[in-house]
Amino acid sequence: MMTSNSIELKEYLRERVALVDAALDRWLPEKDVLPPRLHEAMRYSVFAGGKRLRPILIIAACEAVGGVPERVLHAACAMEMIHTYSLIHDDLPAMDDDDLRRGQPTNHKVFGEANAILAGDALLTEAFRLLADTEANRGIDPAVSLRVIETISRCAGSQGMVGGQVVDMESEGKSLDFATLQYIHTRKTGALFRASLQAGAWIGGGSDGEVAALTRYGETAGLAFQIADDILNIVGSQAEIGKDVGSDHARGKATYPALLGLSEARRRAEELRDLAIAALEPLGANAEPLRAIARYVVDRTS
Amino acid sequence: MMTSNSIELKEYLRERVALVDAALDRWLPEKDVLPPRLHEAMRYSVFAGGKRLRPILIIAACEAVGGVPERVLHAACAMEMIHTYSLIHDDLPAMDDDDLRRGQPTNHKVFGEANAILAGDALLTEAFRLLADTEANRGIDPAVSLRVIETISRCAGSQGMVGGQVVDMESEGKSLDFATLQYIHTRKTGALFRASLQAGAWIGGGSDGEVAALTRYGETAGLAFQIADDILNIVGSQAEIGKDVGSDHARGKATYPALLGLSEARRRAEELRDLAIAALEPLGANAEPLRAIARYVVDRTS
Repeated sequence: MMTSNSIELKEYLRERVALVDAALDRWLPEKDVLPPRLHEAMRYSVFAGGKRLRPILIIAACEAVGGVPERVLHAACAMEMIHTYSLIHDDLPAMDDDDLRRGQPTNHKVFGEANAILAGDALLTEAFRLLADTEANRGIDPAVSLRVIETISRCAGSQGMVGGQVVDMESEGKSLDFATLQYIHTRKTGALFRASLQAGAWIGGGSDGEVAALTRYGETAGLAFQIADDILNIVGSQAEIGKDVGSDHARGKATYPALLGLSEARRRAEELRDLAIAALEPLGANAEPLRAIARYVVDRTS
Repeated sequence: MMTSNSIELKEYLRERVALVDAALDRWLPEKDVLPPRLHEAMRYSVFAGGKRLRPILIIAACEAVGGVPERVLHAACAMEMIHTYSLIHDDLPAMDDDDLRRGQPTNHKVFGEANAILAGDALLTEAFRLLADTEANRGIDPAVSLRVIETISRCAGSQGMVGGQVVDMESEGKSLDFATLQYIHTRKTGALFRASLQAGAWIGGGSDGEVAALTRYGETAGLAFQIADDILNIVGSQAEIGKDVGSDHARGKATYPALLGLSEARRRAEELRDLAIAALEPLGANAEPLRAIARYVVDRTS
C-alpha cells in the first residue's frame, strides 16, 4: 500500500473512531447511575481499547451508498456493545478463562464473575434498546429499523455468533476439519461482519444492488480478517495483539494457519481481500475506505 | 373467589398456555439444529414447567383491548424467553448458585456452566429476533413493533431487570431498607410486568386511555405478585414453589415479609390487588381474566 493511502486511511479511521467513542459515551449510562458498579463494568470493557472495526464498517457502508456517519451511529454503537458483551462472556472462567484482553485485566478479573456476566447481559440488551431508540431512529423508515434488528439478532443468536462460540468450545483440543473451522468463523465473526455492512447500507438508503455488493464485501472481507487475526496470533508481537503470542495454539484452538499452513493461509487471505475489493466495483469512489481497510488488514500480516 | 370463577380462570389459562407452548415449540430451533447441545439447553429451561405468567399477561392485555391472542404470540414468546434467560443466569454458580429450579436440576447442572451462560445469551438474542421477525410482525405497524422492542429492552436492561439483579446480589446478607427492596423488585420483576401489559395493549390496538389503565394494572399487580411470591416462599409447600421452603430467608435475601412482617405484607398485597382491579375499570368485561388473575395470585397466599 502506498504511504499516502496509509495516511488517508489512518485519518479516516481516527475521525470515525472519535465519532463512535463520543456516541458510546453519550448513550451508555454514566458510572454514577444506579447501579454504579454495573455501569462501571459495562464502560470498563467498552472503553478498553477496541479498534471499533464493526462500527467503522457500518459507517463506511453507509458512506459508500452516500449516507452520512451520524445516520448510523446508533447502529454502530449497538454493534460494538454486542461485540463487547461477547468478549466479556468469552473470557469468563467457565469459557476461555482469560485473564487479559487487549493487554488489560478482563472484566471478571476486575469486577467479579457475577458482575461480568451481568455487564455482558446488559450490554446485549442495551444494544437492542439503542437499535429501537425513538430519538436515534428519527427519520429512518421503521420497517428498515426492524429489518436491521432482525438481521443483527439472527447473526448474533443461536445459529449465529452464540452458536459459533458453542462449537468453538466443543472443538477445543480436538483435531478439527476445515468444514468445522469454517462453521465456527462464519458464525462467530462472519455473520455480524456481514450484518454490519448490511445495516449501514440499508440505513444509508442503498439500492438493492449496492446492498448486494456490500453484503458480498462483508462475507469475503470478514473471513479475510479472521484468517489475518489467526496469522497475527502466530507471527505478531504481543503489543500488537494484546494477548500472549501463540496463545491460540497453546490452548489447542483450531486456526487457519494450523490447518492450512502459514503460507497457504496467507494466500487465502489475499485471495479473499481481492474478492472483497472486486465486490465493491459498482460503488465507485465512496467505497474507497472499505477497499483501504481490506488491504490494510490483510497486508499487515506479511 | 367463587368456585365458578376459579374454573373459568383455570380454563382460560389452560387454553392460553397451550397456545404459548405451541408457539414456543414452533419458534425455538429444534434440538437437532446445529449446534444441538445449545438448542437442547435452551429448550430444557423454556419447557421446564414455567407458569407462562408474562405471556398470559401480554395475551390478556391484547384481549382486554379487543385483540386476538394470535396477534401477540411472538411478543408473548419473546417475553418468556427473556424471563427464562434471566432465570438461567440467576441460577449460575457465580450468582445464586441454585441446583434446583421448579423442582428440576438447573440448566448449568445439566449442561455445564458454559452452555448455560450461552443458552441464556441465545434466548435473550432470539427474543429480540422474534420481536423483529418479519413474518410475526405482518400487519402490525412497524412503529408499534419498534416501540415494543424499545420498551422491553429498557425494562430488561441495565436500569431494569439486570440492574435489579445487580442490586439484589449486592444486598445479600446485608440488612436492607424498604427503599432498596422496592428498587430491586420494581426492576427485577415490576418493569417487565408493566412492559408485558403495554406490549399487549399496543399491539392489540388499545387507545391511550386503555394503555394507561393496563400500565397501572401492570405496576400494581406486578408488585402484588412479588409480595405474594415472597409470602409463599415462607408459608407455601415445596411442591408449590419448586424450591426449598424458606430458602430466601436461609440465604439472607430481603423479602417483604422479612421487612414488614407476614400480616402487613399480606395487607399490602391485598391493597395492591384492589388497586390493580380498580385500574381496569375503564376496560369492562374484556378485562375479566386480568381481574381474576390478580385475585388468584394474591388469594392463594392466605
